[in-house]
Parts: sequence; structure tokens; C-alpha cells
Amino acid sequence: MTDAVTLIRAKRDGYPLSDTDIRWLFEAYARGEVADEQMSALLMAIYFRGLDQAELRTWTAAMIASGDRLDLSAIEKPTVDKHSTGGVGDKVSLILAPLVAACGAAVPQLSGRGLGHTGGTLDKLESIPGFRAGLTPAETLAVLASAGCVICAAGPGLAPADRRLYALRDVTGTVESIPLIASSIMSKKIAEGTSALVLDVKVGTGAFMTSREQARQLARTMVALGEEHQVRTAALLTRMDTPLGRAVGNAVEVAESVQALQGHGPADLMEVTLALATRMLALAGLHADPDDPDDPDDPDDPDDPDDPRADPAAAIADGRALAAYRAMVRAQGGDPDAPLPQAAHTTLLPAPASGWLTRLDALAVGTAAWRLGAGRARKEDAVSAAAGIICLAKPGERVQAGQPVLELRADEPERFGPALAALDGALAVSEQGPPPPVSPVLEYISPAW
Amino acid sequence: MTDAVTLIRAKRDGYPLSDTDIRWLFEAYARGEVADEQMSALLMAIYFRGLDQAELRTWTAAMIASGDRLDLSAIEKPTVDKHSTGGVGDKVSLILAPLVAACGAAVPQLSGRGLGHTGGTLDKLESIPGFRAGLTPAETLAVLASAGCVICAAGPGLAPADRRLYALRDVTGTVESIPLIASSIMSKKIAEGTSALVLDVKVGTGAFMTSREQARQLARTMVALGEEHQVRTAALLTRMDTPLGRAVGNAVEVAESVQALQGHGPADLMEVTLALATRMLALAGLHADPDDPDDPDDPDDPDDPDDPRADPAAAIADGRALAAYRAMVRAQGGDPDAPLPQAAHTTLLPAPASGWLTRLDALAVGTAAWRLGAGRARKEDAVSAAAGIICLAKPGERVQAGQPVLELRADEPERFGPALAALDGALAVSEQGPPPPVSPVLEYISPAW
Repeated sequence: MTDAVTLIRAKRDGYPLSDTDIRWLFEAYARGEVADEQMSALLMAIYFRGLDQAELRTWTAAMIASGDRLDLSAIEKPTVDKHSTGGVGDKVSLILAPLVAACGAAVPQLSGRGLGHTGGTLDKLESIPGFRAGLTPAETLAVLASAGCVICAAGPGLAPADRRLYALRDVTGTVESIPLIASSIMSKKIAEGTSALVLDVKVGTGAFMTSREQARQLARTMVALGEEHQVRTAALLTRMDTPLGRAVGNAVEVAESVQALQGHGPADLMEVTLALATRMLALAGLHADPDDPDDPDDPDDPDDPDDPRADPAAAIADGRALAAYRAMVRAQGGDPDAPLPQAAHTTLLPAPASGWLTRLDALAVGTAAWRLGAGRARKEDAVSAAAGIICLAKPGERVQAGQPVLELRADEPERFGPALAALDGALAVSEQGPPPPVSPVLEYISPAW
Repeated sequence: MTDAVTLIRAKRDGYPLSDTDIRWLFEAYARGEVADEQMSALLMAIYFRGLDQAELRTWTAAMIASGDRLDLSAIEKPTVDKHSTGGVGDKVSLILAPLVAACGAAVPQLSGRGLGHTGGTLDKLESIPGFRAGLTPAETLAVLASAGCVICAAGPGLAPADRRLYALRDVTGTVESIPLIASSIMSKKIAEGTSALVLDVKVGTGAFMTSREQARQLARTMVALGEEHQVRTAALLTRMDTPLGRAVGNAVEVAESVQALQGHGPADLMEVTLALATRMLALAGLHADPDDPDDPDDPDDPDDPDDPRADPAAAIADGRALAAYRAMVRAQGGDPDAPLPQAAHTTLLPAPASGWLTRLDALAVGTAAWRLGAGRARKEDAVSAAAGIICLAKPGERVQAGQPVLELRADEPERFGPALAALDGALAVSEQGPPPPVSPVLEYISPAW
């Protein structure tokens, strides 16, 4: 028998916690024998001392065991999901889930709402009239079976210990810990029941991880955790120094996603989406792995797993991806043909000089969109469907002094002042140029097997 | 305006907290705006990052400001107190307070109860029939004025923030932090209103600090804190590898203290007591400072502050110290002539071999006395007045195999088994000898001015 103080002191002093210790901790926490103040002291000790691979595996398993695990065995297609660590203008899920579904996989995407300057996928979808993000497990399975993909809220039964720990970390300054982030993300994704998972780990000013080395460490930690729980897992590191695509907000991102599914998506958004789609299909066994020299896309090889349907570019070009999107929205109660909410007020931010736009800072744009009403400060807050920002120019493009670079949209005009204040210094224009083009995809972290 | 998460993150990342931050923290904690789980995360961050001298001064001041400060201005004598970090057989306060009072100072000793293997001064005094440790501030002042000394419980109005923080530290593995220990001790002593203070910082197996370097660091931190709050403060480091004196428990320590006041105290106990008494009288301006070459004890120098009454050895020899003890006990409702409680059961632990006793481990003896009933495991527990241990031999003395070394006393005979288990390996006997005598007084840390 152990007790909370013994465990806290052991971790504080740098000793690893045993499997028995960790299982006892989560069970005692659920029973109320370990108090929130004890758990928060332990979380701070973990912030300083970390969790080794064995501790992390058990910690994650204990969070999964705290609730139910979705049973996807009735789904006949291979299941594969994507998780993003969050970025500004990151509407990739809205395009990717139907796109991968159209290519023959099933995408069970249990998602979250936004908090702070990065938007939430569910908040975006809820700007579609009638769309329901809250589904029962049976409804989730039914939408997945009929549309090939589902994007809904993770129910209260999935990894409830993670929900409780996350709320505690949020108020105790213990969010920024790689093992705690990795176990939080992976416990939910593993409990969701997917067989394969691709992680989009964002790096840059608008991302949770601002250093590439930290992002890589987080990605590797999560890939290893997935492997240990029999989920085929890989990761991409992608840039988040400037918004992805041109729209930042809720309805505006839905509109841009539909354009992307119609074949008119901005280049950076499409590059990230297609890179993720290809890896998801590879992990699902439906597409050659572009990073594996032993897995060439060879149509003459009878063992080559490529399904001719599993070409994402073709699935956009021939309308299958858009059809899957419309089927999913309808299956979740939404009307894909209904007009999206429009903001009552707009204002423009002009370029300060003529030249090449070299910087349009993701954090500043995300914060401005948040202040316009697109995001929430507390989880009880409502968000505005119509508020947001359109990037009329992106880094690498030429602008004239006074030409509008950003269009700000809000329901109330008094939102513009605080939003414009967040954008102070967010733009840089240079006469040197054009800047060399950069790919938004930085690095691929292979699955461990 | 700040918030708890910002403060926690700043400390976690190694930045100092400002005066404003710390004052806000304690006020918001008292108002309930900072939750216990946030405070415990901050305490763990402080465990790792520490508090610098400026932070510690403000932290301590905020704990003092959380409650009342006792006003001793009505006391005409210089006030001086002693605090011990706690040891086994440490009944020094019972002898020292009346001794220093007999030498002309006033000793306002607000004390605590024991928890774990070190006994509490109040628990010991409460074995005297009728003795009351809980006094109102007015009663405290009245006893101090009439008897020259008072030993009572710190009321709930003194540094209540320390009381709350200590309870939190106790369950969150954040007790062992030098700045948190120093601020906890000093906030209570400063709030008590004494003008001068001598700290007895114990070092050894039976003490909170087992390393001399750590003990020195704690002593220096507390001496500096005292100075910053206008309390003349000095410290002695003293050994705690073996019990101090021969009695360990409650009534048995009262009996040994009375013997010491009658001039029959064990050498180690008297050496520590007289060393502390001399420093207390020096800080009170009543005695030359034995550590200051510029302050010789010169009876021909009219500026020499020595009061002829201020000789502790004389105050014992002529009965003034014992008289002050009896006056204090009576003023607090106790009967100094009443028989002390006697244990119903005793058992003896014999020497395992013949030779010189080289070790009698303080922690083992303290734990055994605790298991016999002299101490408490939880603060709600009652203690036995009669339970305890008499050390019939001490290190440096010669023993014969089979000769009793310890006499264990308990109210219930089933206590002996667990107590004897704690004593397994606590004794060492060597044929080499006698071991060189060691002084229990290790080091003096001067006041900073």
C-alpha cells in the first residue's frame, strides 16, 4: 500500500513511479482519496522531473482505463484519425476527414472546442445551421458507417481522468509538460478506438510548441505511446508562423474548407492537407508510404496495397471528397446548402508600406480573431459564428502601401479596437524580395514499426 | 493585476515574484480567489526554484500580516525567545524559559505540539496536572508579566496563513524546502512580538536536517529574516544523533527538566541549555556575547552590560530558575507539586554485548517513544502523558552484555512490540574505547548586526 504523499515525494526527488503506484493513484483519485491539491503538486513535480517511457505508458493506460473505449469493430473499413496540436486558421480536419473517407478509410474524429487563440474544429462546424457536435456513441458509429467520417465531441465517458486532470493543469500552470501533453492527447485518441493515427504537430509563433526540437520530442513521445497501445501512429511537423490558408474564424473557415473540397484551396492549406491524407492512407494500408523506399507506388505489383480510389488529389478533382463532406454534415443534422452566418461589421487593415509581405504573425492574427469573438476565454463562453479575419495577402505576396491586408469581421463594432491592438506589429513589409518560398511541411516522424 | 496561473508559471520558470505579486497572492488566497490546488502547485514550484532573499522577506511579511501580532510593549524587561527545529528528548524549553526569566529577561514562548517522532513542548507540559497551554493574548501577557516567562500555544490569530500553508505542505510533499521552513518558523516567532530570538537548529539522524550544510543554510536564512523584521536573531547548530538527556516522552521529560533546574541535569542537556541561555541573554543586552571579542565580560567597565543576576549557572545554583518554573506552571493552572502520571507497564532493552556504547540512534528512540504513545501520528490524536523511554546508558558509557540500556514505559503492554521493532539496530557497542567525548554544540551563527 502506498499513499499520495509518498508518491509525490518520490517523483519530486526524481524516482520513477511503478505501474502499481500509478494505477493506485488514478483509482484513489477517482475515489476521492487523493485530493486535487495533491494531484496538482504531483503534476508540478512531473513538470520538473518528467515521466519515463514506462511511467508514461502506464499513466496513459490509467487515463484510458478511467472510462470507456469506443468499439469500432463494426466498421468494416480501416479506421484512421488525425490530431492537430492546434494552430491559427487550422481548418484541416474539415477537409481531411471527408477526403480520407472518400479514399476508402473510416475517419472517427472525436474533437474539442477552442480555448484561447486557436480555434476549435467543433466551433467551426457548429456555424453550419443545424450541425450537431454532441452525438451518442451509437450516433457516432452510425454517422461513421454511413458517411465514412464523423467529427463530433468526445463524450464524457472517454478518458474522464484526462478531462479532470486537464482542468487542473489549466489552473495550476502545469499545461506545458511534454509527457502530460502526450498522455492527454493519446489517451483520448486511443480511447476513441482508431486503429491508426497521424499527428500534426505545429511549430511556430501561433503554435503551442515554438521550438522545432520540442515539437519533435512531443511527436516522438506520442508516436511511441501509440505504438505501445497498438495504434499505428506517425507525425508530421508543420509550420505555424502565419495562419494556414486565408480564413481565420468559424464560418469563414467552413467556407474556405468547402472551397478547398471544390478544388480551390490555398496552396499552403492544400499542401498540409494532402501530406496528412497520404500518411493516413498509408497507415490505413490503402496507399503506398511516400516515406518508405520499400513501399513504392507500383501499379504492376500485385502486392502493392494501393487502392486506385485512394488518391486524394483525384478524390477532390472528381467531387467524391465534397460529397463525403456533405453526407457527414447532413448525417449530423446540418444543412450544407444553408447560407453561413455573416458578420454585421467589417474593417480593413492596410499594408503599412509597399513591398513584399514578409511576416503575418500567426499568434497576433489568432489573438485578434479571438478578440473579434471567434474564440472563447473561458470554456463556458459562447463563440461568434461570423466573427473572424480574412487574410487578403499572405507572406511572399507583393502589397502596395494602403492596400488592405486583413479584413476583420465582428458582430459588434467595439470589438475592432482590441483586435487591431493585437495586430500591432504583426505585419512586416520589405523591399527586398520576393522571399524564398517555404514549404509548410517540415518533417515526418515515422511510425516506430 | 495578476492572477494565480501567471504567478505559478513565473516561479516554475525561475523568475522571482515581486512584492506586489506575493501580497496579492496571500490576500487572494485568504479571499478564496486562489485555490488550494493552485497554492500547492506554487509550493512545489518553490520547492524546485526556491525563494530569493527579497521574495522570502515579503513572503514572511505576508504571513505575519495575515493575522495579529502580539503587542509586548507593556512588558518592561527585554523580550527574548528560543525556537528549536525539533529533536528527540529535547526538553530544553522547559528549563531554558524559566532560567532566562530568572536572569532578568522576559521569555514569551509560543510553542507547538509534536507530530511524528519529535515531541512537542506543550504535550510535555500538559502532563503536569492542571496545566493549561491554551491562553488568551491577555492571559499570555499576564503570565509573562508575573512569572517572567510563558509557554503556551500560538493562538489561531497568529499567522493563520502559515497554519493553512503548513497543512497543505504536509499533504503535498512540500515540507522539505528551506525557504518554506524558514518563513513558517519566523512568521510565527515574529508575530509573537519578541525582540530577540535564538534558534536551536538540530542536525543529525533524529533531526529534520540530517546534513550540517543544510542546517547551516536554514539557520542563516532564518537569522537574515529575523534581522529584516527587526528581531535580533542568532542560531546554534546542535547535535541530534542521540537523545538529549536521558528521558524521552512527556511526563518523564518534565521530571528530568525539574531535576535539571535543581542542578542535577545530564551534561549534554545542560551544555545545550546554558549555551542557548548565554546567547539569549547576550541578545537581550543582559550578558556579554561569548562570541564577540569586542564584548568581554568586564566587571570594571561601567559600559559592560552584564547584570550580575544574568548568570545562568548561578540562577540554577541559587534556586531562582526553579522558582521561575514553579511560578510559570502555577500561573498556567498547573500544580508543580502534584505527582506526574506513571506508566502501568515497563520493559527493558538490554545491551547486546559488553563494551563502550558508541551509538544510541535518536530517530530510532524517537520512533519507539512515539509508538509507545508519547507522540501522535495525526494532529487530532491524543498523546499518553506517561509513555516514554529512559536511556539508562548513553553513548560514551561502558555497558555489560545484558545490562539494561533502555527502559520503555507504556500504558498498554501491546505497545512494546512495535516500539522494540523500531529499536532494532539502534544500539552499537564496541570494545574499542572509550570513544572521544563530543560537544553537542556544533556551531554558532551570529546575528547579522
